[in-house]
Amino acid sequence: MKEIVSQKKDYAQWYTDAIAAAELADYAPVKGCMVIRPYGYSIWENIQKILDEKIKETGHQNAYFPLFIPKSFLSKEAAHVEGFAKECAVVTHSRLKSQEINGKTEIVVDPESKLEEELIVRPTSETVINAMFSKWIQSWRDLPLLINQWANVVRWEMRTRLFLRTAEFLWQEGHTAHATAEEAEEEALKMLEVYRNFLENVLAIPVCLGRKTANERFAGADNTYTLEIMTQDGKALQAGTSHNLGQNFAKAFNIQYQNKEGGLSYVWQTSWGMTTRLIGAIIMVHGDDKGVIMPPKIAPTQIVIVPIYQTDEQRAQTCEMAHNLKKRLGLKVVVDDRDQLKPGRKYYEWEKKGVPLRVEIGPRDLAAQKVMLVDRITGAKESMGIEEFCANASKILDRIQMDLFARALEFRKQNTFVLDDYSEFKKQVDETGGFFQMHWCESSDCEIKVKEETKATIRCIAFGTKEESGKCIYCGKPSPRRVIFAKSY
Amino acid sequence: MKEIVSQKKDYAQWYTDAIAAAELADYAPVKGCMVIRPYGYSIWENIQKILDEKIKETGHQNAYFPLFIPKSFLSKEAAHVEGFAKECAVVTHSRLKSQEINGKTEIVVDPESKLEEELIVRPTSETVINAMFSKWIQSWRDLPLLINQWANVVRWEMRTRLFLRTAEFLWQEGHTAHATAEEAEEEALKMLEVYRNFLENVLAIPVCLGRKTANERFAGADNTYTLEIMTQDGKALQAGTSHNLGQNFAKAFNIQYQNKEGGLSYVWQTSWGMTTRLIGAIIMVHGDDKGVIMPPKIAPTQIVIVPIYQTDEQRAQTCEMAHNLKKRLGLKVVVDDRDQLKPGRKYYEWEKKGVPLRVEIGPRDLAAQKVMLVDRITGAKESMGIEEFCANASKILDRIQMDLFARALEFRKQNTFVLDDYSEFKKQVDETGGFFQMHWCESSDCEIKVKEETKATIRCIAFGTKEESGKCIYCGKPSPRRVIFAKSY
Repeated sequence: MKEIVSQKKDYAQWYTDAIAAAELADYAPVKGCMVIRPYGYSIWENIQKILDEKIKETGHQNAYFPLFIPKSFLSKEAAHVEGFAKECAVVTHSRLKSQEINGKTEIVVDPESKLEEELIVRPTSETVINAMFSKWIQSWRDLPLLINQWANVVRWEMRTRLFLRTAEFLWQEGHTAHATAEEAEEEALKMLEVYRNFLENVLAIPVCLGRKTANERFAGADNTYTLEIMTQDGKALQAGTSHNLGQNFAKAFNIQYQNKEGGLSYVWQTSWGMTTRLIGAIIMVHGDDKGVIMPPKIAPTQIVIVPIYQTDEQRAQTCEMAHNLKKRLGLKVVVDDRDQLKPGRKYYEWEKKGVPLRVEIGPRDLAAQKVMLVDRITGAKESMGIEEFCANASKILDRIQMDLFARALEFRKQNTFVLDDYSEFKKQVDETGGFFQMHWCESSDCEIKVKEETKATIRCIAFGTKEESGKCIYCGKPSPRRVIFAKSY
Repeated sequence: MKEIVSQKKDYAQWYTDAIAAAELADYAPVKGCMVIRPYGYSIWENIQKILDEKIKETGHQNAYFPLFIPKSFLSKEAAHVEGFAKECAVVTHSRLKSQEINGKTEIVVDPESKLEEELIVRPTSETVINAMFSKWIQSWRDLPLLINQWANVVRWEMRTRLFLRTAEFLWQEGHTAHATAEEAEEEALKMLEVYRNFLENVLAIPVCLGRKTANERFAGADNTYTLEIMTQDGKALQAGTSHNLGQNFAKAFNIQYQNKEGGLSYVWQTSWGMTTRLIGAIIMVHGDDKGVIMPPKIAPTQIVIVPIYQTDEQRAQTCEMAHNLKKRLGLKVVVDDRDQLKPGRKYYEWEKKGVPLRVEIGPRDLAAQKVMLVDRITGAKESMGIEEFCANASKILDRIQMDLFARALEFRKQNTFVLDDYSEFKKQVDETGGFFQMHWCESSDCEIKVKEETKATIRCIAFGTKEESGKCIYCGKPSPRRVIFAKSY
């Protein structure tokens, strides 16, 4: 099994190693694409199951729209196409054929199959979905229209990193249409709250909620709301976004409805999404030098039970107790009764997979009707009577879940700084990283200059930031409030 | 709401109308692609949920592989690329750009972004998955490797039909690797049985299981097993396939493992899949002139309750009873308490959506503590005490499920013919359609000639066909058994 370099030594390499050691994903033979291996995919399945329920509870229905978007559709909203033009997979032909080349038969693209209009592999689906909305929405009775899609999308990225940034990724994208601007704003914020709740309570990841600056907005949105989280190397990671699209796409795609007064009005819209990047977020918020750590509420395996034995009789007895325990717990439990591996080797494997709780059952435990519990976060061991464990297993997992959240929150606090001096900022953002609450005059120029000089961007204007006059960290002009600067993935 | 033409008058138009009336799917603005609307997608979600469970119960794990396949990968297995070359979406560029054309700014493909190697949008994933298998499989301990993927695939079809044949469709594709030929054969047949069970017991569709002839095999398989079903217009529809791939891909992708004796062996493989075509199958096996009919086990809504009232007091009381009933039933129930629509209009809508059972509650029912049940298949009405209904609702749905299966089975029997005369066959296959059990000499020439002359193909050599010498329906030469000929979708 692959060794994992320490986080301190090389965080980027640690991330790659931890993913390989847990068998979460692999780079594919296609540049920039990834293969999500069964263990990684089962995390995504758990994310989908829980998030899908929340999306449906808030009144949305799933549907499926085409992978391909005609170039002319993508071009209809000017800001939108500008945002995505540089990272498009373009389909131009529809056939291959055999051809003799230097006496060898080669498979080549058939030039006669050139498409009349090029198709773009969806980087996001606003355009094709809104083309359908314009057919489906006729009257105020058809509103609100609340749709979600689980799909793959493609953005041609130059620098890729497993889960965080790959040419193809999986996501859900919500698309809604409303009668009023107020309803659209309410929807965008409602879904942001669904995301916050999911990140904090299911993935145990503390979230900074806020609004993006104009520079960092989604291409085609009036307003983008974001969920920013802090990774262990002090960077920001955008874990999800929710956009108030205003009437930009409604006008580009002519989505009008007959209002109650009998006139025609354009709809107001939102879109919002979270992606397989969440798996990267789990790894970069909770992992340690032993590898990844899975929060119990999303873990494919919550508890691993390892029987310890020397004789055949001991083997039979400890394995029986392990399997009985599994049945009684009703949680996601794996009994690792592989005969060819020593216990230490098994511990090592399951630590790398980040299973939050290990239960060891040896002959002495058997005799005393006890189990040995080992916490994946702290490594702490605790012997417990089997009845007590059965009664408290869920609570123990809840405690681990809360410990992970508390630890991540404490880390973020320790690495969030209030600064008023630019040269200090330049130094510290390189040395320690972190979130920097600093004054900003609201000009794009200053924002861009800071980015050029430090690589840090404004991650968001955090909700609940108090209004306080100050001086812009870059130009010294008046600023109404602090915003959060950080380097980001 | 859209009218539906009768099945007798124009079956193809009936199919299109029934889909539109139930709001299952729409053609997309992209040629040959479809949009699966929320009601249609919820059927797919139910299919996924039940089938995914069966796939996992038989030991398979889900994973995710890239959308794009390098052209050179697709070309590695000669028969495979030949089978798919004529229907490939080919990605050739990775950027768009703005360009002035006759004084107007147009969005064009950036010629400088031409890819070094063209990428094919997966028509199926044998090649990219086996490239990964060759990395993952080292020793006999890694076998069997049992993987499944839920994904979208693209096959550039010229003649499309919603659900049955579209350029993009959704499916699951299983891919497995085994140590021996026997294990691979066992796996291919095991998954065929999982499919049969699903089609017959969940979708209420009788299945004809069998083996494909060499002509009709999957491109790259040693053997293809198929599940053929009969549509109401007497055609065959291939509802799923399971392939024994032998060592064809193992050799093309060099998937070798260290066997127990220490030598190197190639693996033996299978692949198998079912698609969104299943929704088309449900429609074409169970629908009637009123529209689609959903088998209760897959229905997004199993029971619709319609309160009937005139006064506000009656409205309050019947709606209360309806909602109480919904709570007690614990099934997939919708209470249609929309105030602006008359009951007759509601019946019409839900019939078009194929909800198997309708429950009407009027003031007299309320007084007598009864409900009126209306069966979607027969239209039969039955008044039943509310307690009796609560105790028997599941059984009533089971009965409807069985009725649908029995009706489809009877239809297939009535339309399956044993024939020995070619001119009679040519006439009947056009006039009545159906499955034709006829002798065949096992030569591809005869098979192709029959196809050319009648458009009918050999759907399968059905399992359990008795060996019986006869004369080939086409050439008169000796034949060892009858096979099933039919026109197909």
